[in-house]
Amino acid sequence: MADQTLAQARGSVLGGTYRTFYSTPLIVESASGCIITDVNGNNYLDAYNNVPVLGHSAPQVRLAVEAQLGRANVHTRYVDKGIVDYAQRLVATFPDSLESVVFACSGSEANDLALRLAAHATGRDGVIVTRHAYHGTTAAVATVSPSLAGSATGDHVEGVELPAWDAPDFDELLAATIRDAAGHLAGRGHPFGAFILDSAVTSDGILEPRSLEQTVRTVHELGGFYIADEVQSGFGRTGANWGFERLDVVPDLVTLGKPMGNGIPVSAVLGSHEIFDSFGAEQRYFNTFAGTAVPIAAAEVVLAELESGALTTRANEGGAVLKDCLVDAIARSSVPATVRQNGLMVGVDFELRPVTEPNAVSTAAAARRAQAMVELLYAERVLVSSTGSAGTILKIRPPLVITDDQLKELALAFGRALSRLEDLENSKSSAADSRDGE
Amino acid sequence: MADQTLAQARGSVLGGTYRTFYSTPLIVESASGCIITDVNGNNYLDAYNNVPVLGHSAPQVRLAVEAQLGRANVHTRYVDKGIVDYAQRLVATFPDSLESVVFACSGSEANDLALRLAAHATGRDGVIVTRHAYHGTTAAVATVSPSLAGSATGDHVEGVELPAWDAPDFDELLAATIRDAAGHLAGRGHPFGAFILDSAVTSDGILEPRSLEQTVRTVHELGGFYIADEVQSGFGRTGANWGFERLDVVPDLVTLGKPMGNGIPVSAVLGSHEIFDSFGAEQRYFNTFAGTAVPIAAAEVVLAELESGALTTRANEGGAVLKDCLVDAIARSSVPATVRQNGLMVGVDFELRPVTEPNAVSTAAAARRAQAMVELLYAERVLVSSTGSAGTILKIRPPLVITDDQLKELALAFGRALSRLEDLENSKSSAADSRDGE
Repeated sequence: MADQTLAQARGSVLGGTYRTFYSTPLIVESASGCIITDVNGNNYLDAYNNVPVLGHSAPQVRLAVEAQLGRANVHTRYVDKGIVDYAQRLVATFPDSLESVVFACSGSEANDLALRLAAHATGRDGVIVTRHAYHGTTAAVATVSPSLAGSATGDHVEGVELPAWDAPDFDELLAATIRDAAGHLAGRGHPFGAFILDSAVTSDGILEPRSLEQTVRTVHELGGFYIADEVQSGFGRTGANWGFERLDVVPDLVTLGKPMGNGIPVSAVLGSHEIFDSFGAEQRYFNTFAGTAVPIAAAEVVLAELESGALTTRANEGGAVLKDCLVDAIARSSVPATVRQNGLMVGVDFELRPVTEPNAVSTAAAARRAQAMVELLYAERVLVSSTGSAGTILKIRPPLVITDDQLKELALAFGRALSRLEDLENSKSSAADSRDGE
Repeated sequence: MADQTLAQARGSVLGGTYRTFYSTPLIVESASGCIITDVNGNNYLDAYNNVPVLGHSAPQVRLAVEAQLGRANVHTRYVDKGIVDYAQRLVATFPDSLESVVFACSGSEANDLALRLAAHATGRDGVIVTRHAYHGTTAAVATVSPSLAGSATGDHVEGVELPAWDAPDFDELLAATIRDAAGHLAGRGHPFGAFILDSAVTSDGILEPRSLEQTVRTVHELGGFYIADEVQSGFGRTGANWGFERLDVVPDLVTLGKPMGNGIPVSAVLGSHEIFDSFGAEQRYFNTFAGTAVPIAAAEVVLAELESGALTTRANEGGAVLKDCLVDAIARSSVPATVRQNGLMVGVDFELRPVTEPNAVSTAAAARRAQAMVELLYAERVLVSSTGSAGTILKIRPPLVITDDQLKELALAFGRALSRLEDLENSKSSAADSRDGE
């Protein structure tokens, strides 16, 4: 009852853009590590939130933020040693050409700025994105986020279909697609200026491209910039410091966000001096909250964990454990699915390809399975979500402090949910059979 | 030397968009209340920063943030009581029609969203802004911030010249200007959809419009929305809770930012259910960091001070004290200037109007005076800056915990700086005289 009152109050005072996860929303009391506790005292294993990369309520972040809040939190029109130290250490984790950094508040702001930088440097405003990309919520970035609206919007944007995730010539096919798309953009009067890609290809279904060397070479041949959106894939998530490292490429611009400050709003764009200097000479850019001392203090704690190798190690080792357990659970079930994995960014794809394969189901049926699994896992008190253009893929992306025991617990819950899904599907088909017999 | 090394390191690792205030940048060691201490132990009276509205390093904000960081900081896909309580209290400080709120991270993001909401609701994308407006740094908002580039950019934007600040028929003149501008927009194929105005008219020179009733009526007659940008003027700064309250108008949308969380990144858009529901039905909008529990905890502390009347009282009383002292100092000087004031948003305008007035100086000379005063006050260890289309106006905008003693200290430093300016100008003109005599 109190829960319903709260939900009603929320609906009446928060604008109509707010949505909650799950059929019955989770009302939070507290959160610690990988556990979120609801107001009724139930503990949920959080296998979804990548922002608290060091865990919910991480004490070392709390201490760093508290200490800095007691010292100073001025903006970047004044000089503060903390931001310089942090920037030097951050830049040191990137290839040489990504030598300087500008801070922002959100991944959206970082991508918004990166697109402006690319358009300024190339003199071209055409943008190529993947067909179901998500890069953020500002007006400019929403136009290159077809996942928000179902399709790319604006004459200056071309949303390209990715090759099949298991195509051996993924890179060559994508390069050819980019070449075609650049032609379409030029034909519409918006010459190709930037290809922006989430390095874990999250919203398009968590793909595992092995190399994009040829794709990026093509982008450069066509006069465009390659922007690596590391908002999802950065800070060790994929098992490398930065997702693009797994793709054999060096971006012209890199954007960072979500886990950067373990939840304190901070984001960044990295690029060359030339790019920033040329932009800065003609355009003013000042972001009041960005790079202030408190977000930087939080970000420093996360960066230290990245530097120590703790995040990449956990993503690699935990990802392998989770994948094995999930593959095992699927093998013991009659529900077919494929597990794809970039470190601890894990997708369980319920749509088999080609559809002529035995047990293949329609996209709609696969999406129903993924949605049912999200809810069944919620009933098991495990938090995940779904992704992909049709929502056919379970998205598992826990804080990078999840233990092997918690991952095994997750996989056991997954196995139970899968059995329950089988039961539900069987009882439905029996019901259908008996109706057929009437 | 260490300072120079730091400055060099900063330049080599931060992108070329960063600028610092003052000829010799202030290198921060710590900050408390209205005092910023540099690395050499010098104390500066901060009469410029509006973000730390409760003072730098405000202990009550530190405590609230620390407590929340130890509890939970999940995003809005889960339900948290804190955001609902806060939103209810925030909305209660606004007229009834501003009944619901969507959170964002920065003032830029809030204005970016407000423009999208207005365009969606009106079906028109033409925007009218003031000639030297500043509304933020996203790609979309930069196009309606002519102060960044010197002029409004884009066919969909019309930058209008404001009436003279002391025109008795300011409102009528602005209404007529808006009507003309809407005609220009329509002629360029971008029908008028929104008029966005900083309620303290800060970047256009800190004007003091008494009413905009006729202007806003005209905006509505023309089918547009009036967006009150309260990023600068909100949270008591002008002596009212919200700057638009002093203008006898009710906005269709309101944006909040800077002081909202005393430095923890948080911002918001307020509007009617109808506006948000209609947008939310067609567009997805989710902002990961926005409205998470930690920024809301910081914002709650600021809101409590607003609710108590402490901020408006200080702005009104302190603003009156400061204005009197400044007017007095100017009267005792041979440098003419006009003091304009909205609470503790205070402008000292060195350009007299009309230029036929005795002692009137050229715009360039007035700008030199304002810039000189910024540096002379910095030498007096008082932090201010300048504003206006030509930088002819000193901008004084201290944290709202500044005491009367500190304001008097500020005015004394202002008086000394003004004397020094007179000396400098006299010695220059003597030098010029003696050169003339050669």
